[in-house]
Order: sequence, then C-alpha cells, then structure tokens
Amino acid sequence: MAKLYFRYGAMGSSKTANALMVHYNYIERGQSAVLIKPDGEDRDGLDIIRSRIGLSEKAYSLSWLKKCLPHINKEDIWDCIIVDECQFLSPDDIDFLSDIVDDYDCPVICYGLRTDFQGNLFDASARLMALADVIEEVPTVCWCGKKAQFNARVKDGKIVRTGSQIEYGGNESYTALCRRHFKKGIVSNPNENKI
Amino acid sequence: MAKLYFRYGAMGSSKTANALMVHYNYIERGQSAVLIKPDGEDRDGLDIIRSRIGLSEKAYSLSWLKKCLPHINKEDIWDCIIVDECQFLSPDDIDFLSDIVDDYDCPVICYGLRTDFQGNLFDASARLMALADVIEEVPTVCWCGKKAQFNARVKDGKIVRTGSQIEYGGNESYTALCRRHFKKGIVSNPNENKI
Amino acid sequence: MAKLYFRYGAMGSSKTANALMVHYNYIERGQSAVLIKPDGEDRDGLDIIRSRIGLSEKAYSLSWLKKCLPHINKEDIWDCIIVDECQFLSPDDIDFLSDIVDDYDCPVICYGLRTDFQGNLFDASARLMALADVIEEVPTVCWCGKKAQFNARVKDGKIVRTGSQIEYGGNESYTALCRRHFKKGIVSNPNENKI
Amino acid sequence: MAKLYFRYGAMGSSKTANALMVHYNYIERGQSAVLIKPDGEDRDGLDIIRSRIGLSEKAYSLSWLKKCLPHINKEDIWDCIIVDECQFLSPDDIDFLSDIVDDYDCPVICYGLRTDFQGNLFDASARLMALADVIEEVPTVCWCGKKAQFNARVKDGKIVRTGSQIEYGGNESYTALCRRHFKKGIVSNPNENKI
Repeated sequence: MAKLYFRYGAMGSSKTANALMVHYNYIERGQSAVLIKPDGEDRDGLDIIRSRIGLSEKAYSLSWLKKCLPHINKEDIWDCIIVDECQFLSPDDIDFLSDIVDDYDCPVICYGLRTDFQGNLFDASARLMALADVIEEVPTVCWCGKKAQFNARVKDGKIVRTGSQIEYGGNESYTALCRRHFKKGIVSNPNENKI
Repeated sequence: MAKLYFRYGAMGSSKTANALMVHYNYIERGQSAVLIKPDGEDRDGLDIIRSRIGLSEKAYSLSWLKKCLPHINKEDIWDCIIVDECQFLSPDDIDFLSDIVDDYDCPVICYGLRTDFQGNLFDASARLMALADVIEEVPTVCWCGKKAQFNARVKDGKIVRTGSQIEYGGNESYTALCRRHFKKGIVSNPNENKI
Repeated sequence: MAKLYFRYGAMGSSKTANALMVHYNYIERGQSAVLIKPDGEDRDGLDIIRSRIGLSEKAYSLSWLKKCLPHINKEDIWDCIIVDECQFLSPDDIDFLSDIVDDYDCPVICYGLRTDFQGNLFDASARLMALADVIEEVPTVCWCGKKAQFNARVKDGKIVRTGSQIEYGGNESYTALCRRHFKKGIVSNPNENKI
Repeated sequence: MAKLYFRYGAMGSSKTANALMVHYNYIERGQSAVLIKPDGEDRDGLDIIRSRIGLSEKAYSLSWLKKCLPHINKEDIWDCIIVDECQFLSPDDIDFLSDIVDDYDCPVICYGLRTDFQGNLFDASARLMALADVIEEVPTVCWCGKKAQFNARVKDGKIVRTGSQIEYGGNESYTALCRRHFKKGIVSNPNENKI
C-alpha cells in the first residue's frame, strides 16, 4: 500500500527544505526516516543535506542504502525513505526505489528537478514520471510572477542553450523561469534597473 | 496565462469520455472547443472520437490543426483545444501544442497513456511530462482494487513483455494493472473462477 | 485503507457524468459499484441518475442504502459506492458514509456542489470538507474563460442574492461563475450580442 | 488572475515551516512578500512566526494589514501575502482576504487547521473551503502510518471530546490522528512500551 512519490520543482522551489521538513515530522512523531542523496553529490558535503533557508541534516548515499538493505528485515525498515536531488540518480536506481516501495511496503519520497537547462527530462525524472504513484509539483515563481517550471543556465546575464547536462565548476548560474520566458530566453525583468 | 494540461491514465480510465465531456461543457456554455486526434488514428474512424460508455463526437487530425492554424487570428482561436490519444503524437507535436498555449493564450488539454506495455513512457508523454503546466491523473483500478497505472499486453491470459510499442492487428489485448501486479505479471484475480 | 472522496464542482461541471463514468469503469472491470442519490431527488426520476451529455443509470436512494447495509457482510460490500448530488444530504448522512469507509473498508466517492447560490457551503458539503480524505475539484469555466466556482441564481438575466437555499418550481436558472463575476453579479458577457 | 489558496493540515504538518519557506523564496528572488498572523496570536510573540524545525520570521497582524491596505496602490502591493494560523480568523476576515486577491490581483496563501479537536471545521476554515481557488493538503502521518487529518485534544493520555474550541493555559496537548483512530480515540500505539 506504500507509495512512490515524485515531488518535482524548478530550482529554488525549496525541494530540499521540504525533504528536511518531512524527515523532521517523522522523527518528531517517534517514527523513523532516512535521508538519501545521490553518490558523490557533495555540494554541501557527502553526508549532509543542506537547504538555503538554513536547515541541514545527516544524509546517506544511495550506495549505502543498496548495501544495507539486504540486511534489513521487512518489518524493521524505516517508516519513510526520503531522497533529495533524485534527478542525479540513474533510471535503474529509480526501479530499485520502486521495488523498495512494493516489496517492503515502505513509502519513498523523491525530490528533484524534472528538466535540465535545455528543458529535457532528466533520465531519472523520466523514470519517476513513468513509475510514481503520486506526481506532485513543488511550486516556485518566475520573475514575472507566473509559475516557474524551467531551469535556465545563465552566463553573463544571458541564457545558455548548449553544453553538457551537468556542468561542474563553471561560472554559470541557474534561474527558474516560466515556460514563456524560458522559450524566449528572458532571464530577468527587462524593466528593472540593474545597478 | 493559458495552460498545457497532461491528463494521463491507464487503459480503461475513461480518458476519452473525459475529453468528450470537457468538449461538451465548452459547447454547452456557448464557447468554442475542438477535438483533435493523431493522424491515422482510425480505431473508430478518422474523424470521430468514441468512448466505450457510448459517447462520440466529430474530431479533427493534428495535421488539419497544423494546416489551419496559420489562418486563424489570435483572437479567433477556440476557447479550448482537446487532444485525445496524445501518446501517439511525436515530441515535436507536443512542442507545437505548447506553442499554441503560449502564443495564442489558448488552453490545450491532452489525454493519453503515460506508459506503453513495457512500462516505458511514450515519447510524446515524456515530452508532456517535461512541458505541461498541469499533470493530472485520470484514475482507474486494478483487478485487486488498487490504483492501476500500467497497461499490460495480454495474450492467452499471460502478460507479454516483448514486441513493438504499437501492435497492429494482433490478437493481444490490454489490461490496466497496479505496479505490483504489472511487475509480477498477474493479469487477473487468481482466486476467481474462470468459466 | 479505503478513502472518502469529495469531488466538488460548480453547476455544469459534469459531476454526474463523472459519477456515471466511474460506475461504468468498475462494472466494465467486473467489479461492483452502486450509485446513490439523496432521497426524493427526482429531477430525473427517483431511481435514475441522468447526465446532460446523454448518459443515465439506475440509482438507489440513501435510505435504501441505510436499510440494506446491516444485511451486508463486510466482505460482500460493493467495490465502490458513488453518491451524486451529495450537497442535498444531511451532515449526519456524511458521517454515515464516512463510517462505511472506515468500518467496511469501502471507498465512497461523493459528487456535489460546494456552495449554494449565496456562496455559502451546503451543510453536507461542509461536513465533507471536514471529513474527506481527498478533496478534488471537477473544474468548469465561467463565461470569461476563468475557472467557475460559484452557482449564481439568475432571474430575468440578473443575479438573485436572496431566497431559500433550495428553490422548487421557480423560473430561476443557475449559471456557474468565477469568484470575481459572482461578487460583481455579472452573469454573462456584457459585450456579447443577445438576440 | 491571482488566486486564494487554502493549505490545510493537521497539527505537526509543518504548515508554519511551509509558510516561512514560501516567504523566503519570494524574498530570495527579489520579490516582496509579507507574513500575516491573527491578532493576538502570541504563542511565539505577537510579531513573529516561528516553526518547530527552527525557522522564524517577522510577521504582522491582520489588523495591521487592514489598516495599511487603503494606503497601498494596486501596483505597489506585495507579490504575495502569506497567512499563518488562519483558522483563528473570522469568516469576514477571509472575505477581506478574498477581496485582496480579486481587487489587487495579489495571491493570498492561507495556512491553517481545517478542523478543531471535535472534528468540526473552524469557521474561518469553512469560509476558505467555500471561497478558495485552490484547496491543498499539507500532509502528516498518524502514529499508525496513515495520513493524519484530525487534531485530538489529549489529557493524561486520553482523548478529550468536550470543551471550548480554543483552550488557553490548559495542560492538554494535541496530537494528529487519522480518521479511524480519531473516531476510536486511540491516541498512540497501544503496542508500544511507555516508560
């Protein structure tokens, strides 16, 4: 009866803070929950999940979960598994998580981006879109006030349309845009004075 | 401000009946709406959409929409475009529909399957999962009573795992299953007497 | 594990057609479902539910359900109970339906209006808003194209603000409006020629 | 086009943390937002909203909003108004907030409980259920793992069914329960050792 959730949102939509809150709620109620992140995802350290708003919590890698799962009895599994930055997993990882839901009756909640800077689904996000029981949006807003759903890669104030899906160490940044402004490549309010 | 909707559901979830109802509601209120289906989708005839429950309505092909759109002024466009069986479109077709939403401010509601008989996203459905403003499920139930989300191809009472995505003229049928029973390949209640 | 659903929508949102489709889907899959309507709701006859789009089905009154329920074993109950026009029930009736969900593990899906012609919750709708596991909107549109959520009582082309909640045999009609136009009392497009 | 949101959840569902995150997201993007709380709601001080997870932010009372609104031009209004503990407002306050949405085109997001310790809608929550464009649940879990939707008042480990809707200075506490356990009055796992 447990469910696989995909809670997707553009950058800056507080997906990580949401993940931490869900974890906090389980713990506060005396239930168990574990925070999982992709292997090697070390933006804030390999064993921590940190949200811009100022929350952080101990996290474990997906490899760790794979290694310890065979040693866990069905009745001893956590009350919830919460995965952050799930777009960086592989489609097979998503199938693995889906099997946990079905075989262990343990809810798995995945937070992540749906599309990359070119507006294409991440592979893991596509797999989640195929398998998830519940698909929910974590909303955020474009500079225009409309719902943002795309993640523009921005360099020197201009949208970047080419490059590799994951950019390491570049001086690009990302900004969440609505579909109209993503298509047109307008990354900020043109009527606003920039100092 | 108009939105692109993807209303996905497994086979037998009344997607077509829903499409026809939305069309009916627009017409009944004195607004305009058009029903679109993929080119060559002739299950019930090329220019008709028919639901198992006994409803049907005149429909047009996507090619027709592409041809006539350049001759339509922005202010004269329909109040709503409703697309059935959208899983049979191409990803480019979905981009075309998304441009109608953004350029003409006309809502487009797409009804279709999310995954094929192997549990993989249809290409058009993947594109909709990337672009849609609103992703909603049209629910239906597995034989076990749980929500069905997969479309098993069935031959001689057994699930079929291989073959081409779209099967023409075969003697296979499809049945909607929950994820657990799709994975296990149990297509009907094993405790039920078959006569 | 079964759930109590409240699917609310303004007039003309095809709630009844949705109820009939859900019923049809259960029957088509070889499962059982029953259509329930308020006692004395005889718009289309006491034992029938009819949708404007042209669908109809045999229905039973809530009194009938109350009478026969004590004679039904938990394992023999329907796979789903579908209630139309639920706004005309009493709050106690909703508690009764909620007990069926919890005691018989049988899903109950209630379709109905949320507010009356003055914009106030119907008593039964308020009780459903308090108790339902799932609250979902059946959307429809105002003449302006925005989502309609209020049911204006209209007489001689003008909105009526006073009177009893349920009007019998009057020559008023109802029209679904968005909140802005309901507040302002604009029941149709002022720029449209009326012949 | 702006919308009135009612995001309801049981106690301990992180409604306040969600409110603070939405506020944070607006500010981070260079947009404006204001946090509003009921007059006299001084659990954490009259001018602060604090979440159990460790976040807090400056807040203003609804009276303050009513006083300053007439001095704000339509184009200068915030990009979003966020209201916490909205169940303690009056129905008229909700109408006031709904008018801001419609007259100023400013989104208003209300967080609050839907029902009191007896399972009845708060008056303000009922008004929001009637008026809101979007009704969304902030989920939390019962001790049994199912979704919690009721707020049981608990004294000496037992559920309390009578008393005033808002209890000041009592030694009661509240715990979120699913509908079944709320009905039965089972406020914690009976199989768990209490030390």
